[in-house]
Amino acid sequence: MTLIVQKYGGTSMGSPERIRNVAKRVARWKAQGHQMVVVVSAMSGETNRLIALAKDVSPVPDDRELDVVISTGEQVTIALLAMALKDLGLKAKSYTGSQVRILTDSSFTKARILDIDGASLQRDLDDDTVVIVAGFQGVDEQGNITTLGRGGSDTTGVALAAALNADECQIYTDVDGVYTTDPRIVPEARKLERITFEEMLEMASLGSKVLQIRSVEFAGKYKVKLRVLSSFEEEGQETLGTLITFEDDVKMEQPIISGIAFNRDEAKLTVLGVPDRPGIAYQILGPIADANIDVDMIIQNVGHDGSTDFSFTVNRGEFSRALKILDEQVKPHVGARAVIGDNKICKVSAVGVGMRSHPGIASRMFRTLAEEGINIQMISTSEIKVSVVVDEKYLELAVRVLHKAFDLDQVLA
Amino acid sequence: MTLIVQKYGGTSMGSPERIRNVAKRVARWKAQGHQMVVVVSAMSGETNRLIALAKDVSPVPDDRELDVVISTGEQVTIALLAMALKDLGLKAKSYTGSQVRILTDSSFTKARILDIDGASLQRDLDDDTVVIVAGFQGVDEQGNITTLGRGGSDTTGVALAAALNADECQIYTDVDGVYTTDPRIVPEARKLERITFEEMLEMASLGSKVLQIRSVEFAGKYKVKLRVLSSFEEEGQETLGTLITFEDDVKMEQPIISGIAFNRDEAKLTVLGVPDRPGIAYQILGPIADANIDVDMIIQNVGHDGSTDFSFTVNRGEFSRALKILDEQVKPHVGARAVIGDNKICKVSAVGVGMRSHPGIASRMFRTLAEEGINIQMISTSEIKVSVVVDEKYLELAVRVLHKAFDLDQVLA
Repeated sequence: MTLIVQKYGGTSMGSPERIRNVAKRVARWKAQGHQMVVVVSAMSGETNRLIALAKDVSPVPDDRELDVVISTGEQVTIALLAMALKDLGLKAKSYTGSQVRILTDSSFTKARILDIDGASLQRDLDDDTVVIVAGFQGVDEQGNITTLGRGGSDTTGVALAAALNADECQIYTDVDGVYTTDPRIVPEARKLERITFEEMLEMASLGSKVLQIRSVEFAGKYKVKLRVLSSFEEEGQETLGTLITFEDDVKMEQPIISGIAFNRDEAKLTVLGVPDRPGIAYQILGPIADANIDVDMIIQNVGHDGSTDFSFTVNRGEFSRALKILDEQVKPHVGARAVIGDNKICKVSAVGVGMRSHPGIASRMFRTLAEEGINIQMISTSEIKVSVVVDEKYLELAVRVLHKAFDLDQVLA
Repeated sequence: MTLIVQKYGGTSMGSPERIRNVAKRVARWKAQGHQMVVVVSAMSGETNRLIALAKDVSPVPDDRELDVVISTGEQVTIALLAMALKDLGLKAKSYTGSQVRILTDSSFTKARILDIDGASLQRDLDDDTVVIVAGFQGVDEQGNITTLGRGGSDTTGVALAAALNADECQIYTDVDGVYTTDPRIVPEARKLERITFEEMLEMASLGSKVLQIRSVEFAGKYKVKLRVLSSFEEEGQETLGTLITFEDDVKMEQPIISGIAFNRDEAKLTVLGVPDRPGIAYQILGPIADANIDVDMIIQNVGHDGSTDFSFTVNRGEFSRALKILDEQVKPHVGARAVIGDNKICKVSAVGVGMRSHPGIASRMFRTLAEEGINIQMISTSEIKVSVVVDEKYLELAVRVLHKAFDLDQVLA
């Protein structure tokens, strides 16, 4: 007998009718003889509604108490799904994070899971009961309610799959899998049957927002087989989505590049004429980090004449704050010549584990872009990806030509 | 140092602004040096919204799961109030029923409190923290979430006051106390400074719906001092409401009658020509009870010629159902002559512990009504009340003349 953990997001749980549809889908899997654990998010919009309510009472709500409020969103949906399953004649039982005992640390609103006691769930599963668990929430050592932060429900699903030794963790979303790139930009984009965890991590962090990156890391760490599927496919028309798997499983025929990821939401900042001395990176990025601004790409070129230029990218929403910090605090302090910025840029990346054993990927990428007259402003590489920053207006063109250059529109033999 | 338990209902918690007002009120009490436990209901309308949502998913929702859903209403308000109190600079901490450990039986949607572990609350109180507890909910031995049924928040307040040995349990509502009768009918109605538990029980069950009768019973059993106050009185204008006290405390100057209660919502049924033999009351009321219809007054007069008439009252909404049962099941079975009914009646009662030592209350009541030409259809008496059933059209007149006849409009010396 196989044990499957399924996770349904807020859109899948967005109305009574959709909840009944989820129940039918779960019932079909159960009828195939699987043991079923179902993790659910709050109804779409509900978490935001609860946060707004809290802020109406207290502009900066206390974190412990905010978690008490927002954890109610999933508490409602677990019970609604359990009701719907019982109406279909199944045994079903809802569990809050605290009832399972999903033990977390005490970092309210962004807690980390420390341990899961699967004993009582296992008893229910052995008794043929569908177990429904609230995503996104846990409980700390002192019994306080905690939440895991945005997208925490995916993490709950993966953590439960790990704790219960599930055969597979299925993440149901409103897309039917992971694509070679965004089909709205490249109609020829193909759904990937499988993708490695490392590629998925790069794809997710690069803006292909199918899965929360934290849950993918978690799945990789605990070797949980993860599958992305659509919760909107009709009965009888369901596809198998995309399996996120371990590199060892990947066959030799794996294409070199798995996908083209991109992120529109970027801005770049450059500190010009920085003295080329030890500690300068920290002096520039320290104040940025202190202001809680996340930095993405960081580039420092070889200096000449004792000075160098230092560039980095941030989320576009943080652009003016970051610029102000550089101008007012960093520039006078480090004795830089000038600070410039551009918030009309984007990042485009080619991702694939295959590039490890295939040199020349980066150069093929640069040539492809050059042939279209697209100027590359920044370059950053890792083991399995090459990212470039280009003018925002070239985003769609860059994605399309790269998708074609790496044969991603070709179905594999 | 005194320990005070306050309970705020859904109207008092009905909006962010009102929640901040409750916080200010709690802070004023705290500033006077009291230890404070605050029990809250869900925002007004929220429990009904959640029930409707559940019924949208499942027409007859599973009771266990329904409790999981509706208990979220109070989980939201405890945290909102805690936030608001922290914003005022106080230490505050919210507790769900499960976090306190308000242990109940497993009768979902109508659970009974078995035990309260006050230890962790007491530690918080000793640490100068305002403790906020979700009303209406608890947890059973197996860790399932339970709710106490409508009005359960009052019961939570009283039970906590008993468990923590509180000096007083204050129930904040939208009225400022218990009146001698409804001021909308008798403008001269006075607020009572005190009323005994027994009188309050009679007043509550007779239609003066200030407090849930269950919580009053509970308070009487555990000798908890209960006070009804208004949560809408402005700072500096607050009154002391009505204290519900034990008979032993009542001074000799206590008036004979404390109030005139009434209930519009009644209907009477009479089975005529019933054979006067043992077991007949059960044969008549058994089928009514089996249909889950609550019976209020029951009157059977001395028989003559071997037969008698048997009358009782029910809630008006159950009138036609009860009539049908009597006609179709009871009449042929017991061999009664006829069944008649009237759903245009009301009940008016004079309540007061003083009548125990003052004979003649009933006759003064009957004379007063007779002088106004009001015909009495049924009479029922207890130790501390006399109730009459009269035509509904006389309700206001009867209440007014009785209120005056017993000098309830006179302020006591």
